[in-house]
Amino acid sequence: MSALQNDLLLRALLREDVPRTPTWIMRQAGRYLPEYRATRARAGNFLTLCKTPELACEVTMQPLARFPLDAAILFSDILTIPDALGLGLYFTEGEGPKFERPLRSAAQIDALPELDIDGQLRYVTDATRLIRQTLNGTVPLIGFSGSPWTLMTYMVEGQGSKDFRHAKTLLGQDPAVAHRLLSKLATGVTHYLNAQIEAGAQAVMIFDTWGGILSPAWYREFSLQYMARIVDGLQKSADGRRVPNVLFTKNGGSHLSEIAATGCDAAGVDWTCDLATARAAVDGRIALQGNLDPSLLHCDPDVLDAAVQRVLASYGHGNGHVFNLGHGITPQVPPEHLGAVVQAVREHSPQYHRA
Amino acid sequence: MSALQNDLLLRALLREDVPRTPTWIMRQAGRYLPEYRATRARAGNFLTLCKTPELACEVTMQPLARFPLDAAILFSDILTIPDALGLGLYFTEGEGPKFERPLRSAAQIDALPELDIDGQLRYVTDATRLIRQTLNGTVPLIGFSGSPWTLMTYMVEGQGSKDFRHAKTLLGQDPAVAHRLLSKLATGVTHYLNAQIEAGAQAVMIFDTWGGILSPAWYREFSLQYMARIVDGLQKSADGRRVPNVLFTKNGGSHLSEIAATGCDAAGVDWTCDLATARAAVDGRIALQGNLDPSLLHCDPDVLDAAVQRVLASYGHGNGHVFNLGHGITPQVPPEHLGAVVQAVREHSPQYHRA
Repeated sequence: MSALQNDLLLRALLREDVPRTPTWIMRQAGRYLPEYRATRARAGNFLTLCKTPELACEVTMQPLARFPLDAAILFSDILTIPDALGLGLYFTEGEGPKFERPLRSAAQIDALPELDIDGQLRYVTDATRLIRQTLNGTVPLIGFSGSPWTLMTYMVEGQGSKDFRHAKTLLGQDPAVAHRLLSKLATGVTHYLNAQIEAGAQAVMIFDTWGGILSPAWYREFSLQYMARIVDGLQKSADGRRVPNVLFTKNGGSHLSEIAATGCDAAGVDWTCDLATARAAVDGRIALQGNLDPSLLHCDPDVLDAAVQRVLASYGHGNGHVFNLGHGITPQVPPEHLGAVVQAVREHSPQYHRA
Repeated sequence: MSALQNDLLLRALLREDVPRTPTWIMRQAGRYLPEYRATRARAGNFLTLCKTPELACEVTMQPLARFPLDAAILFSDILTIPDALGLGLYFTEGEGPKFERPLRSAAQIDALPELDIDGQLRYVTDATRLIRQTLNGTVPLIGFSGSPWTLMTYMVEGQGSKDFRHAKTLLGQDPAVAHRLLSKLATGVTHYLNAQIEAGAQAVMIFDTWGGILSPAWYREFSLQYMARIVDGLQKSADGRRVPNVLFTKNGGSHLSEIAATGCDAAGVDWTCDLATARAAVDGRIALQGNLDPSLLHCDPDVLDAAVQRVLASYGHGNGHVFNLGHGITPQVPPEHLGAVVQAVREHSPQYHRA
């Protein structure tokens, strides 16, 4: 494979010195881009887009053609794992993902098959290989998975939820059954991320979208513990390099010290936690990724420039910061506003990296 | 008026000694009760229920007939203020509240009338008087309002929102306009709560449902500052007593120290912040109210008993704790499960109040 020309992301995630703060954007290949909407229309639906490596590669590359981003992220969905486990993922317009066969009993949970990555999830590793090849060493490729707890919420609720009552009732009523499911998912996610690493992912991220809706004690027991197991099980790349990992618990600002203790390389931080506070909490143990509020992207470029400066100043001087939003970019954002953000980071970040 | 027979809530909110931890439940008069659903059906719709003092009184009293709760809370809605300001509140089944005329320009914001509490909101003070009379001194009556920022989100978005993009864009793009709206709302809320106090409310609560979706800097500037102004403007009761106030920012666990600095009497805490952590943050300056996860109410009574014990132990020994959920009770909860929670607090809390 080609040598990596821009390794800023990997260096920042490992807290090595960089000349400027690298940037990538959660959901950078997404509906705010007209070219994404065109490819998706051609695919017919979202799942076909995910499951066709050529199309997944095409949309992964689109934001890189527009903006000088420092990483690509595999185009996929966090629900590929439950889909591969036979729950029957489907999408209804305007309502988000749903499962035909949610898990509502211990018997259903214990009857889950082993995750068949080489077969059922072959389209993910194929897409990873194709994207890595297409990137041709320009920027690193990030692989990802949902966290065991976040996957479990969708698998038990059967869809998104406001109160997560089925999933939380399972934690309260049958914690042993919940632990069996989470343990199985942690093993599956570890294999899944390692398969992405073997296929060419140069960094991996675990999205714990719903860890922040748990009490602190339950977060430790049912979410963080399993992410820590995954971190322990991640392998190096084929050429023997460490593949940096990022744990992102949305609304997890109060858990950052414990997240750092898992041995992960970096943590995602959303905009409800100040980066200065976050940095003090992790105390140099890990890097941080974030944290501009994605809703601000509706503001004019001059407002965005000032907002980016505040994020950079909040992290302050030194290594270990990857610029990102605090959550995924949303469909109505004008693409040129994201361009202004990326430009602002390039312009204002070098001052924080001078000796 | 009759002397108050059970003043545990008021004493706990003022951090005075009590023999057991008092309990009330957010949305205790609500859809989980069949008798509430019957009264609502009789009213025809939710707004008529709010606007008819006899019916509002009837549903306020219903949970007290079932459970040995230590307070009543005025049955009303946080959106009565925007409705009185002419935005045209309406409810569509399954979609939540909406406004016919959301605020989308500085001109619309500056054209808002003064809040007419004696006229447009007379039904609220009439209900307060009737409920206080009907309670006849059994337990105290809590009045409430939405916070200025939370009211503003609905007024600008025109409905509930996932990303609050119109409201946040206003903060970023036209902060001076946002401050004019928030300042007007803070004045209105202060008068509104004082009118409730004059009508008989013995404690008041400010619901800042959406303060926790802001960055820490914006939370201080656009939400907390205005709640602090309201706290400063609250009056005593007609008989010269201090009327304790509670500020509740959902997802505001990281702001508790600053909340305590407003001079409020107590803060609501949701279940994502441990009460031991919360208590350390406020360091004896204010009381705390919370914080059982409402989704746990779907678990069996023995699971709930253990969960209540963990909440009580987390706060620990001494005064200054009011038991509550971390958010409102939801419609599908079996009423007897709430009964188990109330009973568990009565059974397990006295040990934390012995000298």
